[in-house]
Amino acid sequence: MDPITYAQAHREQFLAELLEFLRIPSVSTQAEHKPDIEQAASWLREQLLRAGFPKAEVMPTPGHPVVYAEWLAAGPDAPTLLIYGHYDVQPPEPLELWHTPPFEPTIIGDDVFARGAADDKGQAYIHVKAAESFKETVGAPPVNLKCIFEGEEESGSPSLVPFIKGHRDLLAADYAVISDTHILGKETPSIVYALRGLAYIEVKVTGPSIDLHSGVYGGAVNNPINELCRMIAKLQDDDGHITIPGFYDQVRPLDEAERAELARIPFDLEAWKEEAGVKQAWGEADYTIIERTSARPTLDVNGIWGGYIQPGAKTVLPSEAHAKISMRLVPDQMPEEITELVSDYLREIAPPSVSIEIQPLHGGHGAIIDRNSPAMRAAAQAYEQVFGKPPVFVREGGSIPVVADFQQILGIETVLMGFGLPDDRLHSPNEKFHLPNFYRGIETVIHFLTIMGQK
Amino acid sequence: MDPITYAQAHREQFLAELLEFLRIPSVSTQAEHKPDIEQAASWLREQLLRAGFPKAEVMPTPGHPVVYAEWLAAGPDAPTLLIYGHYDVQPPEPLELWHTPPFEPTIIGDDVFARGAADDKGQAYIHVKAAESFKETVGAPPVNLKCIFEGEEESGSPSLVPFIKGHRDLLAADYAVISDTHILGKETPSIVYALRGLAYIEVKVTGPSIDLHSGVYGGAVNNPINELCRMIAKLQDDDGHITIPGFYDQVRPLDEAERAELARIPFDLEAWKEEAGVKQAWGEADYTIIERTSARPTLDVNGIWGGYIQPGAKTVLPSEAHAKISMRLVPDQMPEEITELVSDYLREIAPPSVSIEIQPLHGGHGAIIDRNSPAMRAAAQAYEQVFGKPPVFVREGGSIPVVADFQQILGIETVLMGFGLPDDRLHSPNEKFHLPNFYRGIETVIHFLTIMGQK
Repeated sequence: MDPITYAQAHREQFLAELLEFLRIPSVSTQAEHKPDIEQAASWLREQLLRAGFPKAEVMPTPGHPVVYAEWLAAGPDAPTLLIYGHYDVQPPEPLELWHTPPFEPTIIGDDVFARGAADDKGQAYIHVKAAESFKETVGAPPVNLKCIFEGEEESGSPSLVPFIKGHRDLLAADYAVISDTHILGKETPSIVYALRGLAYIEVKVTGPSIDLHSGVYGGAVNNPINELCRMIAKLQDDDGHITIPGFYDQVRPLDEAERAELARIPFDLEAWKEEAGVKQAWGEADYTIIERTSARPTLDVNGIWGGYIQPGAKTVLPSEAHAKISMRLVPDQMPEEITELVSDYLREIAPPSVSIEIQPLHGGHGAIIDRNSPAMRAAAQAYEQVFGKPPVFVREGGSIPVVADFQQILGIETVLMGFGLPDDRLHSPNEKFHLPNFYRGIETVIHFLTIMGQK
Repeated sequence: MDPITYAQAHREQFLAELLEFLRIPSVSTQAEHKPDIEQAASWLREQLLRAGFPKAEVMPTPGHPVVYAEWLAAGPDAPTLLIYGHYDVQPPEPLELWHTPPFEPTIIGDDVFARGAADDKGQAYIHVKAAESFKETVGAPPVNLKCIFEGEEESGSPSLVPFIKGHRDLLAADYAVISDTHILGKETPSIVYALRGLAYIEVKVTGPSIDLHSGVYGGAVNNPINELCRMIAKLQDDDGHITIPGFYDQVRPLDEAERAELARIPFDLEAWKEEAGVKQAWGEADYTIIERTSARPTLDVNGIWGGYIQPGAKTVLPSEAHAKISMRLVPDQMPEEITELVSDYLREIAPPSVSIEIQPLHGGHGAIIDRNSPAMRAAAQAYEQVFGKPPVFVREGGSIPVVADFQQILGIETVLMGFGLPDDRLHSPNEKFHLPNFYRGIETVIHFLTIMGQK
């Protein structure tokens, strides 16, 4: 029997195991779930051993443990792949909006509903089952495999970078592989080749040292809310083009070939407006909506507050105004540089009648992956074999910081082999995973490993 | 015993009563305080009866009640004064900035700290105690007195104008008297002869119909916070000059004589900066600080909110952003016209990628009072008798819309006999009233009534 036939014959068993995994409420941000996190880690280690990995360990970190496994049977001449995933999940709240209990996985039609179904348990488990399919048929995978599954992805991965830095040799590989993104549609396979980075700051503008009466002082005391609005308005023009000096200096321009390729991604403006809940799109006129949301840097105020915000009228001239401002970055913008650039600019435009404090909140590097590397070509071929058509290459607007971490610390590129769908409701109530994608994912990974083993 | 001696001998009793008044949390804008509003009204009625007013009533309105009292013992040839004040107070929030609880009046040195201490309970109560001082010595005040104390001043007085219009005969008088302003300093008496008006709106900007992920939609969906900031920035230049078309069309220019008189008001920039808690003054360069805060119109954002405002970072592109915006107006700007002007302009500059809703909250007309009327001259003489020097005539930056209402509906001028101090922190945490001013206020009003009775 070949691995594909094995995988197709064992779908029922694979699904039963996935449901077991989904029943463990491994919420990383809630302290009461610490035992569940530990249970999820040891369950995963057990499954890796059963799937054939000769070595699988739960390795402690200052936070939640990393599950590490390796299977190096393909020999030193075969490539080594580092598979990354996460076994922790988002909090399920608000519970009242779930139609089925978040930790009692429920199959309705072709979907399994549960917290973590697509993000990322279902997608991470694909790799375990692909490995098992080799073990039970040809004895071992055709490439060397290393796995690193973390338990802090949903809480900002505080222990991950130190772990990678502390285990460079253990984690050494030719490529990383991550299944934590989605394809464009059930029958439209796609591969993400670029991710945006993030710079996030919190700004506090202080005017008078106490709240004042606007009738008594208005006109001669600079109101920190008015000033904060003026300052925010100076960061961006009416169409969203960012006006911070130097902001675009490191932006890698889109070339014609890439723009042509992005233009081939199916896009329905009316459906997009419906999905976003807007009357009209907005943004830089020289770029398409797909380019604006994935290939261009952006600046959003994520929160703002100051003064009197209860019902009714109060004529206060407040002491303070606050805003949370984040910027999505594209290659080759560095979050630290951009944070400094925007902070310096805000300090420069703040008039002497107010004080300004800026706190960097967190950041992450963007990444762009060579679409023509042998691993990317192998992945594209594997999708085509299973889905019957070649994948579209897309840029993703969000951030997966570990991709840049692997580039910088281990010097390796990542292949983002996603099997989610756009409507999986990640981080929201009624998260689901489309089961045909679970099975097709396992087969796609089997093909991918097979092609990589022939290189 | 004469009334002045009586007042001096009963300071302890007067203070104890004032503390009782200050303990009632009569916040007019918060529905949960409705019982406290009612308690404050009936407490005040009781005190008016005890002070000698033969008639005192709590009169209902569609909102909070008016406390009305009259004492017409001076006969038809004596002048009649209509005393106006308010028994409601501003909300105490933010509570964490109070050094003592806002509704547990606390005496520190010569000051009593409490919400409403100066605005306006302490000042309104002066008139009750002046009347009592006549009752307990000479039997009755030398002029006819009518009192109208409202409970909606801090929520825009929605019921007051209908009440005045519905009770023209009851309220008929020769002059109105209001103690709801401050003097320039403990030893620098002053009388306000001009007030600014007010236009107040609440603005809601809606972008997407639900909160979105800024990584997925940022750059192609107009963020309502960014847009609200841009719109606010377009209302005013960096120096506070308002850029709404037509905004200054009705502003009565300051003539050279009035500017010269205003320039004679003692003003110490360093002390002012200290009092306001600012490093530097701000505003229209062509006007002095006194002119900017009293004779020029202004625009302040009193509150702003939207998006994620808890600790930490959340990359939300929010659905809504809100702001409360008020404008101080000078004669002859009409609040209704200005509200329409700013609303039209905001609708004009709102791009089609967002929706905007504007709710007018409340407004009030400015006023300018003849400095040479007999009542103004009597008030000046009374201040001089108590403070030992003649008062300075000043313009006030805040608004007391009832002054214009009395002019327009009852045809009477108002004398603004204020006894607050500039650092009383009206509308702010740690509001206070300087107790020597409470006692001197009672004596000044006794002198004023005596002089008016001799006319």
